[in-house]
Amino acid sequence: MSGRLAVIGLGPGDARWLTPEAEASLTAAEAVYGYGAYLDRVPTRLGQERHSSDNREEGARAAAALRHAAQGANVAVVSGGDPGVFAMAAAVCAEIEAGPQAWRALDIAIVPGITAMLAVAARVGAPLGHDFCALSLSDNLKPWELIERRLDAAAGAGFVIALYNPVSRARPWQLGAAFDRLGRLLPSLTPVIFGRAIGRGDERVEVTTLGAANLVAADMATLVIIGSVETRIVAREGRTPLVYTPREFARASL
Amino acid sequence: MSGRLAVIGLGPGDARWLTPEAEASLTAAEAVYGYGAYLDRVPTRLGQERHSSDNREEGARAAAALRHAAQGANVAVVSGGDPGVFAMAAAVCAEIEAGPQAWRALDIAIVPGITAMLAVAARVGAPLGHDFCALSLSDNLKPWELIERRLDAAAGAGFVIALYNPVSRARPWQLGAAFDRLGRLLPSLTPVIFGRAIGRGDERVEVTTLGAANLVAADMATLVIIGSVETRIVAREGRTPLVYTPREFARASL
Repeated sequence: MSGRLAVIGLGPGDARWLTPEAEASLTAAEAVYGYGAYLDRVPTRLGQERHSSDNREEGARAAAALRHAAQGANVAVVSGGDPGVFAMAAAVCAEIEAGPQAWRALDIAIVPGITAMLAVAARVGAPLGHDFCALSLSDNLKPWELIERRLDAAAGAGFVIALYNPVSRARPWQLGAAFDRLGRLLPSLTPVIFGRAIGRGDERVEVTTLGAANLVAADMATLVIIGSVETRIVAREGRTPLVYTPREFARASL
Repeated sequence: MSGRLAVIGLGPGDARWLTPEAEASLTAAEAVYGYGAYLDRVPTRLGQERHSSDNREEGARAAAALRHAAQGANVAVVSGGDPGVFAMAAAVCAEIEAGPQAWRALDIAIVPGITAMLAVAARVGAPLGHDFCALSLSDNLKPWELIERRLDAAAGAGFVIALYNPVSRARPWQLGAAFDRLGRLLPSLTPVIFGRAIGRGDERVEVTTLGAANLVAADMATLVIIGSVETRIVAREGRTPLVYTPREFARASL
């Protein structure tokens, strides 16, 4: 079995964040599978096949790429950000587990990338500078009660929280419900960052607080970071404020 | 004030993970500050100053770099991995907050990188494929009781846990204490990954379980990932098993 499947992280959309490993893997691939918006970011190469599919078809896309690789081809699946964080690598692993034994003999490579929370954090300072968690707010594949329990646990123990998938057309109320819930556990002055389309032309970054946040601005391309009681805002004249979470624990609020 | 300070993530040690943005920022810098082992990874450039300092001197290093930038220079501070995750970006922000007003007028750029947990996860599949947290096990700057509380909260709510700084010469018992504690909350067959020096010549990756883990192998260069009850191991003949956390919540253990 000589087939190879690379699951490649493209980073958050700026070509300057595409790693050399990701670029080399893309160049070597005979076929590239992905959601259309991600495929559009990959420079076309003569003779390389393209297989575009819808955002929601992760399992089918992973299976199609595995079937192709099992024929002996060098195949790539592309993800925005890092493929291992709420993205295609888990879908590929799940298909391998459920699929024919031959898929376990394939050469599988996961090529890491800059995940959205790192790019958003970098734009404002270091809000993820100490203990933090990453939580998908989508209740398509898990019960909302579990999301509530995780929000409570994370905020209660002082983790900074990065929210992936905060809003979609089919999930309009979840972000508001999450903020209501966090508002009961955290001070209203807790720093909050909305980072939208980081590294792309329509990038937008907003630093606000839990009490003052305007959730209407959040959409599918937004990542939200909610600070802990330790997180600090440093005002700067004429510039976006810095937001950071110190490595040193200073509060008596244990 | 024309000074610029870039805080640059070098990634976990393989040059193929250094982003084009990081490379360009390094090339443009007149002076580079960093821990010696990280500076050693930066190719020397004629006329570029180097300022090496010890691993523990983050605050002093950040202040020295800020003073230099405030003289109008283009200065870089380098971090392994991502500078915003348990690294130099928070130290730089803290010095700016505490320092002279002029430092707030500097052009500060945080250049993200592949943080260790993404590289370790990529080597084995997608253990961070769903909700997870990143926790530093160092009790140098926070009380051990807070670490215990965060371990309990994370494991209790079903987050996968990435442990940074699991062991050092001065902190020999903390990892064992953390595993004992997690062993009370999680099944002994919970998947565990030890990833050491990923992307470097002496890289080592081990997939084991909470009950069978041999902690003696962990050192300062190790990152540990502890799965949730959802995390799965997929055996592969002649290859490292795949480890992944499905996006779909399957258990009734809410």
